[in-house]
Amino acid sequence: MKVAGRQYRSLWWSAEEGALQIIDQRWLPHDFRIDTVRTMDAFCDAIVQMRVRGAPLIGATAAYGMALAMAQDASDAALNAAYDRLHGTRPTAINLRWALDRARAALLPTAPDARAAAALALAHQIADEDVEINRRIGQHGLPILREIAATKPPGEPVRVLTHCNAGWIATVDWGTATSPLYQGHDEGIALHVWTDETRPRNQGALTAWELGSHGVPHAYVTDNAGGHLMQRGLVDLVITGTDRVTRTGDVCNKIGTYLKALAARDNGVPFYVALPSPTIDWTVSDGIAEIPIEERDPREVTHVQGATGDGIASVRVTPDGTPARNDAFDVTPARLVSAFITERGVAAASEQGLAALFPEMAARRA
Amino acid sequence: MKVAGRQYRSLWWSAEEGALQIIDQRWLPHDFRIDTVRTMDAFCDAIVQMRVRGAPLIGATAAYGMALAMAQDASDAALNAAYDRLHGTRPTAINLRWALDRARAALLPTAPDARAAAALALAHQIADEDVEINRRIGQHGLPILREIAATKPPGEPVRVLTHCNAGWIATVDWGTATSPLYQGHDEGIALHVWTDETRPRNQGALTAWELGSHGVPHAYVTDNAGGHLMQRGLVDLVITGTDRVTRTGDVCNKIGTYLKALAARDNGVPFYVALPSPTIDWTVSDGIAEIPIEERDPREVTHVQGATGDGIASVRVTPDGTPARNDAFDVTPARLVSAFITERGVAAASEQGLAALFPEMAARRA
Repeated sequence: MKVAGRQYRSLWWSAEEGALQIIDQRWLPHDFRIDTVRTMDAFCDAIVQMRVRGAPLIGATAAYGMALAMAQDASDAALNAAYDRLHGTRPTAINLRWALDRARAALLPTAPDARAAAALALAHQIADEDVEINRRIGQHGLPILREIAATKPPGEPVRVLTHCNAGWIATVDWGTATSPLYQGHDEGIALHVWTDETRPRNQGALTAWELGSHGVPHAYVTDNAGGHLMQRGLVDLVITGTDRVTRTGDVCNKIGTYLKALAARDNGVPFYVALPSPTIDWTVSDGIAEIPIEERDPREVTHVQGATGDGIASVRVTPDGTPARNDAFDVTPARLVSAFITERGVAAASEQGLAALFPEMAARRA
Repeated sequence: MKVAGRQYRSLWWSAEEGALQIIDQRWLPHDFRIDTVRTMDAFCDAIVQMRVRGAPLIGATAAYGMALAMAQDASDAALNAAYDRLHGTRPTAINLRWALDRARAALLPTAPDARAAAALALAHQIADEDVEINRRIGQHGLPILREIAATKPPGEPVRVLTHCNAGWIATVDWGTATSPLYQGHDEGIALHVWTDETRPRNQGALTAWELGSHGVPHAYVTDNAGGHLMQRGLVDLVITGTDRVTRTGDVCNKIGTYLKALAARDNGVPFYVALPSPTIDWTVSDGIAEIPIEERDPREVTHVQGATGDGIASVRVTPDGTPARNDAFDVTPARLVSAFITERGVAAASEQGLAALFPEMAARRA
């Protein structure tokens, strides 16, 4: 998508440098900084520190990390070591494991002296596929927006609530939850997007930055507001992304998603989850019992980063020394999800619904 | 309660100054500043700017505001003007209207030259009553904590989640939701309190400050976390305060309360609301349709205040110019409330439940 009029993806390979270029998202929305990732340490740090974030983008980044590792040492031992290091960076996002599994499966049968080129080609392929998958998610989400728009009086927008940032910078391009929104806006559907702040890391500010850059009307609200807005009839639908979906349709996503799903159910508001199929974990059936939830640094909760008059600073919100807990994700049970929007179409949030749309994947992992 | 070993109330009258002393809560938890309120402008500003906040404390403050007005001009016109100005400061909290109604009803039949003394005596009485009411709320909440504690293995605390600050600084003393917690802690019940951050103004940091000062174990969590904590069995009960309860038991409280009530219901966690009876609005039966919800400055949403290395600063979280919306309260329907904890005992969250406990009030307003 465009930043200040210029087209970007969230990452791209620099052949001259033999390294990955990323948008360092820690400084967004206040500062647009491009960074170069040249070492395995830097790859792991980029994922852990959330310079790159969002399940699909983490997957693509990890694929480039494997390419870098193979360029340095193409042995089986180095391949497995790179897999393990990258896999350990964030335990919840399934796309990370999916990309690494795919790379390892492709590279182990490849002769070591061909692995560097093969790994890089695969990373490019994963990145390009992500763009195309997300474009299709948008295509399949569009009819939902068109249908609601058709019920509105002239000039009244379709009001969408989203949580966290499942936008283009959480993917290689388009985003997941935002892809229908960008494509709907581009075809002239009047939209108004409530962007949940998404504490502790305020990824809603990234969504606001994206939507503002693309010209989509929006307003930033606290995570507390969504239930009230729904109660007052100010939300027509919710669309979020996800970090992992079980084969039964449970949705692991940014902490707080579950609360919005409960409010949507209580108010008869449809609750959609947009996802590329690599986000489905066919090995897991009970999201609450089986998905490990990452606990992050409590400082993310006690402190808030933002712009001051002359730079970016972090302020401490709590009394000094206040204990805090920082679970990064929660699980929304499938019963609260209206449907999934995927690259192959819209699926019911159930084992049957997902298996009907992705029969070959359901069969392979069964 | 105590601050650094010294006993305080949230406000007290200075006879020498003929003015009200308040703890200026805008600087808490980072700085403990006492301020003097001497003019009607300053009284209104103290309430609007949330130097004093919390429904019971706003009521007591308004009563002192009437006393100040009567000391300056004891005419009927001045009395009504003071009523109107103070009433306009915050539309949602019912205690404000309750205190003003009580003052006007007492003062109008009083001879003008006796009004200043009568108004001040009434303000003292309202403040003292608030302390006693809150102490009793704690007494009536204690059996609930004791009962849960009795089911716990030795050493395992009763885990309470609270939203916003319904603590001693939101009242004259003790707090509402915190009164059972302070009294439970003091009698040796092991507690662990999850304090919701409560964006946009982070009143959870005030609760953390209070609990830390009193030695009650606690941890600060984002507003997004409560559902996940309940899902994982880490919350035994929720207790919040409220700004207004309808005669039918709908609860208007800080924005986000409704989401926690939904999560409590979904996880079988009891959801209690602690309130003094002046918080009941016997004239209102449908909380969602009838209670005006205050919309505050969007800057409270786009910016966050906190401590830096050398002071208190505000940072902007969103891109410059991002639109935001700031509804301050939401309404939790009575069907989601397990029970009310009041100064007369525990009441079912229904018209019958409230009327049984407060028959004379229900009859008077009917």
